[in-house]
Amino acid sequence: MNEALCIEPGNELMDSPFVKQMIVQLRAVDSYGTYDDWSNEKVLDPLILTKARRREIPVVGDPDEIVVARVKAYYNALSVRIEQECGMMAAPMINLSHEGFGRALIMVGKLIVADKVLRDVHRFGFESLEKLNEEACKIIDKALATIETFKDAAKA
Amino acid sequence: MNEALCIEPGNELMDSPFVKQMIVQLRAVDSYGTYDDWSNEKVLDPLILTKARRREIPVVGDPDEIVVARVKAYYNALSVRIEQECGMMAAPMINLSHEGFGRALIMVGKLIVADKVLRDVHRFGFESLEKLNEEACKIIDKALATIETFKDAAKA
Repeated sequence: MNEALCIEPGNELMDSPFVKQMIVQLRAVDSYGTYDDWSNEKVLDPLILTKARRREIPVVGDPDEIVVARVKAYYNALSVRIEQECGMMAAPMINLSHEGFGRALIMVGKLIVADKVLRDVHRFGFESLEKLNEEACKIIDKALATIETFKDAAKA
Repeated sequence: MNEALCIEPGNELMDSPFVKQMIVQLRAVDSYGTYDDWSNEKVLDPLILTKARRREIPVVGDPDEIVVARVKAYYNALSVRIEQECGMMAAPMINLSHEGFGRALIMVGKLIVADKVLRDVHRFGFESLEKLNEEACKIIDKALATIETFKDAAKA
């Protein structure tokens, strides 16, 4: 993927709470400092899979470490955002086969606030920055509503 | 472990609901039919780690496939027993590093009814059949109490 970045500089979504947290999490797993002199847009860019980019990835494939790290960063970012909003600790748990199938949970207390089946993880990504933010916000809102409904289990 | 079996034939705990289910689950993961002509006592035997047996296992080590299958069988059996008692679907989720550290959950609906930190999985086992049954029953009872307390989250 040597093409130009899919995120234009100055996109105001780069300042949305989720996207900011996502960048924090992506930088957190960059143990070798590869991203140190990268812009936020460049760090986030591999998560944006436009239709053209998606076409270049084989339908069947095993996820490599980098993709798995991105999936983990995504669920970490969701957990942090849920935690920030509800004030209770949120923790992700991800189960992934080497073939890229599995399940991701986010837990608050004894409550499961998000539960996603993962498949084709080697093609993990979002059509646009808008879609990334939109889907994340949906998961966060749903989690917060679940916490509201089952407050005592979340506090347990 | 070529020594004699640790479970004496006729031990009445072999008929306890958990131990029976544990044997079902152990036989379920035996894809090659190795256990076909084994007695129930022999199938269960490797789970009994007396002090003498435990001493023979190195303190540090990676769990092999067979041990991991046993751990999974154990949490499957716990889930089935919880399901039988509460009448709602219970599902385990196990996360294990290749070094034998991780976490096991059992979920009923949106509720986490059991949550165990796993460590030193290569030494997974119980001092006696009594201990195995006792610890399992403790986990099951606690799970059922949790379901009772947070019934609506379990039903969600």
